[in-house]
Amino acid sequence: MQMASKLIEFYFDFSSPYAYFAALQMEDFCDVAGCTVMWRPMMLGAAFKASGNKPLTEQPMKAEYSRHDMDRLARKVGAPWRWPDTFPIATLGAARAFYWLEGTAGVEKAKEFAMAAFDAYFGHGRNISDPEVLAEVATSIGLDPVAMAKACKDDKVKDRLRFETEEAIERGVFGSPFFFVDGEPFWGQDRLPMMQEWVNSGGW
Amino acid sequence: MQMASKLIEFYFDFSSPYAYFAALQMEDFCDVAGCTVMWRPMMLGAAFKASGNKPLTEQPMKAEYSRHDMDRLARKVGAPWRWPDTFPIATLGAARAFYWLEGTAGVEKAKEFAMAAFDAYFGHGRNISDPEVLAEVATSIGLDPVAMAKACKDDKVKDRLRFETEEAIERGVFGSPFFFVDGEPFWGQDRLPMMQEWVNSGGW
Repeated sequence: MQMASKLIEFYFDFSSPYAYFAALQMEDFCDVAGCTVMWRPMMLGAAFKASGNKPLTEQPMKAEYSRHDMDRLARKVGAPWRWPDTFPIATLGAARAFYWLEGTAGVEKAKEFAMAAFDAYFGHGRNISDPEVLAEVATSIGLDPVAMAKACKDDKVKDRLRFETEEAIERGVFGSPFFFVDGEPFWGQDRLPMMQEWVNSGGW
Repeated sequence: MQMASKLIEFYFDFSSPYAYFAALQMEDFCDVAGCTVMWRPMMLGAAFKASGNKPLTEQPMKAEYSRHDMDRLARKVGAPWRWPDTFPIATLGAARAFYWLEGTAGVEKAKEFAMAAFDAYFGHGRNISDPEVLAEVATSIGLDPVAMAKACKDDKVKDRLRFETEEAIERGVFGSPFFFVDGEPFWGQDRLPMMQEWVNSGGW
């Protein structure tokens, strides 16, 4: 009998460093756990409004710890990492581009774009809220930047991102990254080991 | 050549459910990792004042997730668990009693008291901010409740807790549990797996 593959919904904002570190680990995670990941960029600012949360950098003490923790995580994951000069940023453009790609070029291309956008922002400190930088990210993976910029102004694409964000908040997503494993919620990249146990054991 | 044992400083507030779950795992953690744990109760409210943080129950969305998460953690750890009717509570008494015991009866007795206090509050929902309940906790592990109540009003004991709390905040402790592994900071019981890797590998 073949086991059905677990579905992991991976909610994130492109401006979230912990989502970047999670993204870098998702491939390995799924190789081990044997599951399918659905990437779901969203607008974390809207979730912060609903939950009363704030960006890490605006939280005394937690901000300093997080900087230290991220440097440490980057070394652990072996990832390119630099703290961006501008943080946080508006990630509407990147998130819309993702959903446009998912609908037209398929999930693999959308994922490739997501990794390229994360790498530009957190790996190289480039401000992906700047349309020119985003166009360069597109070009770097063989996309037409003009078509992408046009798609980001399309009402259907805009509505899609709004819908995904609203749905995320309705489902209780208040931070990034936030996962659902066959519906079971897990907040934070620190929960990847527990998620792995959940997937392996079928839950408890 | 014998390796020096790693020192783990374990900061917590007796009113912190995640600290309760961490406390339940510390023995096993150290059996595997081979380290010494120094338990450090503190007043989390003072750290919240310094960091602008709030109790979980006062944070929309995060509160609901945490409740679900704690039920799940309790099942995982196999621990007695019930959400206390009164939360959060003032834990001055329990924390002072801990330091009094550490100074007079030794670290093992202090740890036994800490586990009994945690068990009363989170395992059985009993309000340990009530002096009568705290006295019963003391009696249950063979302590003299009258001597303990007296010690909790002793200036030296009070000063000790104040000192430990101030030192914790100076060192950047903004949440509970919070650990230092030979000085390296880790926040949250979700970081136990990473701490284990840190101890095993000597850090990275």
